[in-house]
Amino acid sequence: MTAYNAPIRDMLFVLREVGGLDRVAALPGNEEVSEDLVAAILEEAGKFAGDVLAPLNQPGDQQGCVCKDGVVTTPDGVRQAYAAFSENGWNAIAAPQEFGGQGLPALVATPVQEMWKAANMAFSLCPMLTLGAMNAIDHHGSQAQKALYLPNMVAGRWTGTMNLTEPQAGSDLAAVRTRAVPDGDAYRISGTKIFITWGENDVAENIIHLVLARLPDAPPGVKGISLFIVPKFLVNADGSLGARNDLVCASIEHKLGIHASPTAVMSFGEKGGAIGYLVGEANRGLEYMFTMMNHARLNVGLEGVAISERAYQKALSYAMDRVQGAPLGARAGDPIAYHPDVKRMLLDMKSRIEAMRALAYFAAGQMDVAHLSRDAAEARAAQALVDLLIPVVKGWCTESAVWIASTGIQVHGGMGFIEETGAAQHLRDARITTIYEGTTAIQANDLVGRKIARDGGAAAQALIALIEADMRNWAGSDVGALAKALETPLRHFGEAVEWIVRTHKAAPEKTAASAVAMLHLAGLTVGYWLLLRQAAAALKRKEAGEDPDFVKAKLAYASYYGAQVLPQAEPCFVSVVGGSGAITEFDPALMIR
Amino acid sequence: MTAYNAPIRDMLFVLREVGGLDRVAALPGNEEVSEDLVAAILEEAGKFAGDVLAPLNQPGDQQGCVCKDGVVTTPDGVRQAYAAFSENGWNAIAAPQEFGGQGLPALVATPVQEMWKAANMAFSLCPMLTLGAMNAIDHHGSQAQKALYLPNMVAGRWTGTMNLTEPQAGSDLAAVRTRAVPDGDAYRISGTKIFITWGENDVAENIIHLVLARLPDAPPGVKGISLFIVPKFLVNADGSLGARNDLVCASIEHKLGIHASPTAVMSFGEKGGAIGYLVGEANRGLEYMFTMMNHARLNVGLEGVAISERAYQKALSYAMDRVQGAPLGARAGDPIAYHPDVKRMLLDMKSRIEAMRALAYFAAGQMDVAHLSRDAAEARAAQALVDLLIPVVKGWCTESAVWIASTGIQVHGGMGFIEETGAAQHLRDARITTIYEGTTAIQANDLVGRKIARDGGAAAQALIALIEADMRNWAGSDVGALAKALETPLRHFGEAVEWIVRTHKAAPEKTAASAVAMLHLAGLTVGYWLLLRQAAAALKRKEAGEDPDFVKAKLAYASYYGAQVLPQAEPCFVSVVGGSGAITEFDPALMIR
Repeated sequence: MTAYNAPIRDMLFVLREVGGLDRVAALPGNEEVSEDLVAAILEEAGKFAGDVLAPLNQPGDQQGCVCKDGVVTTPDGVRQAYAAFSENGWNAIAAPQEFGGQGLPALVATPVQEMWKAANMAFSLCPMLTLGAMNAIDHHGSQAQKALYLPNMVAGRWTGTMNLTEPQAGSDLAAVRTRAVPDGDAYRISGTKIFITWGENDVAENIIHLVLARLPDAPPGVKGISLFIVPKFLVNADGSLGARNDLVCASIEHKLGIHASPTAVMSFGEKGGAIGYLVGEANRGLEYMFTMMNHARLNVGLEGVAISERAYQKALSYAMDRVQGAPLGARAGDPIAYHPDVKRMLLDMKSRIEAMRALAYFAAGQMDVAHLSRDAAEARAAQALVDLLIPVVKGWCTESAVWIASTGIQVHGGMGFIEETGAAQHLRDARITTIYEGTTAIQANDLVGRKIARDGGAAAQALIALIEADMRNWAGSDVGALAKALETPLRHFGEAVEWIVRTHKAAPEKTAASAVAMLHLAGLTVGYWLLLRQAAAALKRKEAGEDPDFVKAKLAYASYYGAQVLPQAEPCFVSVVGGSGAITEFDPALMIR
Repeated sequence: MTAYNAPIRDMLFVLREVGGLDRVAALPGNEEVSEDLVAAILEEAGKFAGDVLAPLNQPGDQQGCVCKDGVVTTPDGVRQAYAAFSENGWNAIAAPQEFGGQGLPALVATPVQEMWKAANMAFSLCPMLTLGAMNAIDHHGSQAQKALYLPNMVAGRWTGTMNLTEPQAGSDLAAVRTRAVPDGDAYRISGTKIFITWGENDVAENIIHLVLARLPDAPPGVKGISLFIVPKFLVNADGSLGARNDLVCASIEHKLGIHASPTAVMSFGEKGGAIGYLVGEANRGLEYMFTMMNHARLNVGLEGVAISERAYQKALSYAMDRVQGAPLGARAGDPIAYHPDVKRMLLDMKSRIEAMRALAYFAAGQMDVAHLSRDAAEARAAQALVDLLIPVVKGWCTESAVWIASTGIQVHGGMGFIEETGAAQHLRDARITTIYEGTTAIQANDLVGRKIARDGGAAAQALIALIEADMRNWAGSDVGALAKALETPLRHFGEAVEWIVRTHKAAPEKTAASAVAMLHLAGLTVGYWLLLRQAAAALKRKEAGEDPDFVKAKLAYASYYGAQVLPQAEPCFVSVVGGSGAITEFDPALMIR
């Protein structure tokens, strides 16, 4: 049994106390957003996640997808679940209102998406990619394109995909070779795309592929890539389906995890060229992709939060049930959760998750502020925070998720290694999150290069100032005592920022060698700050009569993290400012003998 | 393609410079051991590992084992490989000479076993368990039992297993319930054993099960468990096979990894009781198991080294081949190994492996000294080092292996997540090593309780004195400069030892909560010491005309580890001496809502 109970209480707490739900609800366009509405949405989503999606997670992993003659069959129950998901309007919640969506703010969509990912990560990728494709068309497509494609995508009848990667063009999209040749009002697309998530499936009537390709006269490199809509079935002017387009799923991958998510090799134009429609202007395809990157990376970071939560729930449930030996410092007959090291592992998982969730929701709330605030200074400051933090959300939450899912196995002992138990699947599923949508190194290089060095550390210093203001407010309180542990890491974070600003221009290979350590330093530090915010809020609520156990737990997570997790910031700092020479001066040819 | 090239040069270097091959060769009984002989053995073993075992690793993982009506079929090619393995005498190398074995010292057997594990971990478990069973019979069985069972086991015709775990008795073997009822000269065994590695197979003519069970009048708990030989086929006095015994493989597990190793549920005595023969004295079964524990744990620690080496070779090969983007600080067209963060990952893998291998070989060499030295003080000191270090070898090398195998996936980017690539298998296989033969927590509790607190820290202080003596010798040299980084971690290690000695008796739950951090602190610190020994030896060889690139690489690994890995000792120290309260004072019931 691998149940999932959406942690609605934790989610609402973080939405309010860290994500800034009040501020987001007060932004123009969010007039309908209220705490009650959000609670009701989470309640409904939690039911769907727990009752419909979660039970399909392990069977879907075991059965996997099959591809035969270009036709993909998803595991039993997935089609029905997807139909119910669409029927219930879940594709619509973050989609544009003009075309049938609810246009809820990112902050509110975030916990809902966390639930889908936790309940069934493989399934969740289908609506996630569809939303990405919808956003691309909504932001960059013509009015006619929007009208033709979006309503059916919002309704869930059609799914969407992103066709970026090619065998020779992975992290380096400049190497894209897929060709687009003008043909009347449209284009003929030909080439092979790999790693296309839900690239072919049996849950949708049509699949709207967004494809990066090069026009014949395109300049080389990143400035010669255009974005095309290439539907599986051409769409008639009235929205009905026309001819099958010249594209086919050549095969699907046999992967370590997310088995219920078909990862397709897509072959375009084997019979003369798939018909594609240019989105926006020619040669601006990568630029368009970049505009959606923050959302996409937030979503994958959220996968880290979600899969960690699922692994934690499973480990906790096992550890509170299994009796083995007599735990030191507990009563005879107590379950293994009371063994000091099992308790340590559970606290490690949980306290990190609380930090990670807070970071992701904080970033989501800032996205809404940046997007909707009419106060230009507020919006600018929020956008700077978003840009700075998104690589941390993506990189740190996913790296942590691999660790946490692995710890979840360890809590189960020998049973953790048995697939039937279900704990191993979470590690297998989590393992992709540090790779796709930009590897951890790419996030880290984005952080140190574009987000820290480029503005001379201004955004990072603004974040530090924000944290310092909180710390001043907390001084003398119970939270102030916990906040003491943050002083050194925060100072070191600031010094690391300065080191990066100082070093990057002259020796970018040095900051690149330090980048992943910097990413972890940022995540560990900011994560603790947001745990302290939760602790402060919990204490305030205690005065207002909050459940004392809830408050006690929040303080315990902050306390554990401060004592056992945050100290890991120190070696990261040492690595950043002092360790890159051991890397940059090394020639890997020495490793070959 | 997933080739394995046994790192013979590295292995011989560590055998000589860290393992103490000269000293071991000079021990009584090792008269035949010479550097030339060892090199020849490694050469032959390397060929068998690379040519025969390694190519079966991925197909065996994909095909897995099948159990039907109690009959297990191993993947294609495994039977033939096992026959060749036995034919070539590889089962014999560490086996007792009296029964056809070669009786080579542990130090020499260690790199050979590393090769089997690296080439094909699932396969290697079969001879490993057989060797364990042989050792149990050789150390504790009667002369008649030895004569009856050992020759065929040494020859590889029969395999051996260890039947310890039961559903309710995992880490806590005191809970064993399998019964043994006297029946003439023998006993009737009945009960269910789980997680029995190679418990049933099609590679051997007979399987000699060693089974823990309780006699009717046995006292409760650990002092009431006896050890029995329970052969699959009864053996006639002339060594020929007799009747099938009353035991059957009920099923095999579907596991995360080591798919080619059948993990059996064994059912004994469904038809009245399997015939078993008491080994040694009644009620001393667990004690007998403990006498073999150091070897068994060394072997599993070695699995960590081996699987890490395999994952590293694969990652290096991919990274030196794949071109993607223009690496910062390198030439255009250079492969991804030159990207700073990929270089960092490769250095991280390699430098940890060099530390781990050195630690395992060092422990193996000390085992030989403890076992064979006629100088009682020398033997005692060596035994104390072995006892202290074995939980570190097992716990730290396997925890590191999970990290390294995961890093190996990361180096491959998206390809790492595709099973065909082969990198993912190493993570899946590695994931069991921190669990079986005592989880990491059990190793860590052994370290802090039995190995540090019990002797008042004497063994740990002796180790520290050994390291300090080296550091004094290195002062002023090039290695002395690298050794500077060890000063603080070593001092902290000593302080942590003192804290454990001070704390353990009054508050064992506190040292238990700190134990895994202490294990990592020990591994990180001792690992660097042994990297420095390698660096010092390499520099000495440079003067003697050694390949300058070999020397350069060894120094680079020490340098990287000192700058980037060793700093992680600091948060471990903080966790040990300051962080356990956040764990011990927490009641996990707060996590349930």
